[in-house]
Amino acid sequence: MPIFLWHRSGIWVQLNTTTTPAKEENRMSVEIKFQKLATDNAPGQEVRQKSSDLDARFIGEPLTGRPVDFSHGDVDAHAPAPASFEAFSAGVSKGGTQAYTEYRGDREIREAVGTRLAAFTGAPVNADDGLIITSGTQGALFLAVAATVTRGDKIAIVQPDYFANRKLAEFFEAEIIPVQMAYETTTDHAGLDLGQLEDAFRAGARAFLFSNPNNPVGAIYSADEISQIATLAGRYDATVIVDQLYSRLCYDGADYTHLRAEDMDPENIVTIMGPSKTESLSGYRLGVAFGSPTIIARMEQLQAIVSLRAAGYCQAVLRTWFNEPDGWMADRVAQHQGIRDDLLTVLRGIPGCSTRSTQAGSYIFPKLPELTLTPMDFVKALRLQAGVIVTPGTEFSPYSARSVRLNFSQDHSAAVAAMKRMAALIERYRA
Amino acid sequence: MPIFLWHRSGIWVQLNTTTTPAKEENRMSVEIKFQKLATDNAPGQEVRQKSSDLDARFIGEPLTGRPVDFSHGDVDAHAPAPASFEAFSAGVSKGGTQAYTEYRGDREIREAVGTRLAAFTGAPVNADDGLIITSGTQGALFLAVAATVTRGDKIAIVQPDYFANRKLAEFFEAEIIPVQMAYETTTDHAGLDLGQLEDAFRAGARAFLFSNPNNPVGAIYSADEISQIATLAGRYDATVIVDQLYSRLCYDGADYTHLRAEDMDPENIVTIMGPSKTESLSGYRLGVAFGSPTIIARMEQLQAIVSLRAAGYCQAVLRTWFNEPDGWMADRVAQHQGIRDDLLTVLRGIPGCSTRSTQAGSYIFPKLPELTLTPMDFVKALRLQAGVIVTPGTEFSPYSARSVRLNFSQDHSAAVAAMKRMAALIERYRA
Repeated sequence: MPIFLWHRSGIWVQLNTTTTPAKEENRMSVEIKFQKLATDNAPGQEVRQKSSDLDARFIGEPLTGRPVDFSHGDVDAHAPAPASFEAFSAGVSKGGTQAYTEYRGDREIREAVGTRLAAFTGAPVNADDGLIITSGTQGALFLAVAATVTRGDKIAIVQPDYFANRKLAEFFEAEIIPVQMAYETTTDHAGLDLGQLEDAFRAGARAFLFSNPNNPVGAIYSADEISQIATLAGRYDATVIVDQLYSRLCYDGADYTHLRAEDMDPENIVTIMGPSKTESLSGYRLGVAFGSPTIIARMEQLQAIVSLRAAGYCQAVLRTWFNEPDGWMADRVAQHQGIRDDLLTVLRGIPGCSTRSTQAGSYIFPKLPELTLTPMDFVKALRLQAGVIVTPGTEFSPYSARSVRLNFSQDHSAAVAAMKRMAALIERYRA
Repeated sequence: MPIFLWHRSGIWVQLNTTTTPAKEENRMSVEIKFQKLATDNAPGQEVRQKSSDLDARFIGEPLTGRPVDFSHGDVDAHAPAPASFEAFSAGVSKGGTQAYTEYRGDREIREAVGTRLAAFTGAPVNADDGLIITSGTQGALFLAVAATVTRGDKIAIVQPDYFANRKLAEFFEAEIIPVQMAYETTTDHAGLDLGQLEDAFRAGARAFLFSNPNNPVGAIYSADEISQIATLAGRYDATVIVDQLYSRLCYDGADYTHLRAEDMDPENIVTIMGPSKTESLSGYRLGVAFGSPTIIARMEQLQAIVSLRAAGYCQAVLRTWFNEPDGWMADRVAQHQGIRDDLLTVLRGIPGCSTRSTQAGSYIFPKLPELTLTPMDFVKALRLQAGVIVTPGTEFSPYSARSVRLNFSQDHSAAVAAMKRMAALIERYRA
């Protein structure tokens, strides 16, 4: 019979009685660290869930239609930005100097990208000391958090926000101070609880990590919110890491305020972006972090042991970034706005379902009505009975169990049809 | 006047008196963690050394000749394995399913590579649960160490061995127990001190991390050494991480023994390989780790927050791996053996210089005679006076200050000429 021990970190761990106690203590210690990183419900990992049997609680026949995986964007429906492959190919032709760049990335590419990012964000970028090319924005987030907080440090994180933010803090054993965002009751600003943010700084939070536009909600922080974040960070000498991954994909001509253009100590801010989403270049795994030279230098030191560098040939693709043909980005925004509008129409036809309109990015985060299935079972039913993959709301906040996140960068008509199947399934399981 | 504090970790840290004490304590804590990761002398990072002025202690005129960067291989001289670019291109054409793979990599590619790695290593590979595709072998090492040891755990590491091994252990705050390798006095085996290894396990080392062939020495562990490592790991229930990056590039028909084919608990071993070196595919940043399903699962969980996955399109290049045209690998081995032989001839003509002959891989690690310059100044003189970049021996072991590492995967005649310039500079500065 297996023996379970209650570990002080607050989870049950099975004791392996066939090994030595010392070895076992180690196994448990590492196991606990990794249990917090569980990826079973992470986007795209559904394939690793071993059991795909229909649950006995599921009722009715499957809903047919083209399957849609809303856990990430469909780069077949929205093709990679023009000339990206040609830029890669030119990088391969360039040979050794493109394969073996500095750990922080090729200098010439850093300079080209730095100039464009300065123009986009409205503040200078030092390509020599203040910019690093990373393995996707995920790579930039990992390195930036590692370079800012260490064991026992406090870090403020928004609820809801990108699920990896929490996992990163936990991996580095930082203490998370949650800050709520009242996104459901606001429309012209994100709804960040600035009082809670100040409380977090007052309680000793050294860093504040947030995404703007917010993932999963698609809310843009207002100019006033950004200004107050800058003021608070300055008052408490805190570092701010802002993930602006989706800041190019703004709808309805929305205003977007770049934190780094505010009056802040440049050593206390790191901005993260990348071409994986709006530009559909995820297959190249590219991201950038720019800002504080001290933090960027640490990120490079860590990247040297994490992966050496972003794939050298892939770095060459950044030559096309912020350098797309005239009108290309406007078209891409218009296409996504059209999909968003049609999905909102379906969602608003579901009684008891509330959805904030996405201001930027390609996520939508509806809160579903009460159902007879648990939220996790409903997500499973969606996948197995309707061919619709979504990401459970609890990945983003403990208070978002009734919400699901959908990335609507999909084939337009397939996405609308899939959303209608979701609506039908909601009716089937309505409490 | 700056104030320096002696931190308990044993280094001086400058106190920043313009900030708050709490903020300052955090800054110091993170700074100390990152000082151990310093990359100033890491291969390829010389460009970030701000001062390139000739040192006043340098004497004589510059030695002219084509510069050679021995810190890494020259993929222009030894071209990427055939069809690699075409495989990448096919991956891009495949679209979304290649861009967004499971975090552990595309299943079909894992299966193809797993079959070939099983044949190469002589033991089964479970492509479903026992193999992960990573961002280079560096990525595999980072994830494997993180998945095996945590703060305060003991890990045995060879001296000398790949410099990142030590940095990885330090980053995860594991305690390193060094195990000496008497490579200078052996020829038919690596010279690992198996008594020290057993002492390390007896002292509680949970893991043993080593490269075979050894980086920087190029020694192959004998069948007997590998067998004894397996026996000791079994006796003490320790995990072994073996970096076999260069195991395809063996000279003179040398025997190579794969640890994973020994009688060992399959849960206690992870093998790491990749196509960055022998196959010159470093620009694609690809590696694999295979073995223990428990450790591979943790590595995937961590990769999800480190970089999500190895670049999806790049993964497609693995289709060409262990799948090269007939004779291609034999040619590559013969070319490198020829360069090795000519470099050894030059080195053996230098009085007081001792060099073990490389059995596998493309590193050579000569121990230089006594010089009037410090080892670090001589490395600098080599770069600035002779156009020859080498990696200082202290990166690999505190006992290797008089050695330098050279990656001889270079243009043949340029490498020989550069080695002759090094020989001339040794005479110039001979003590």
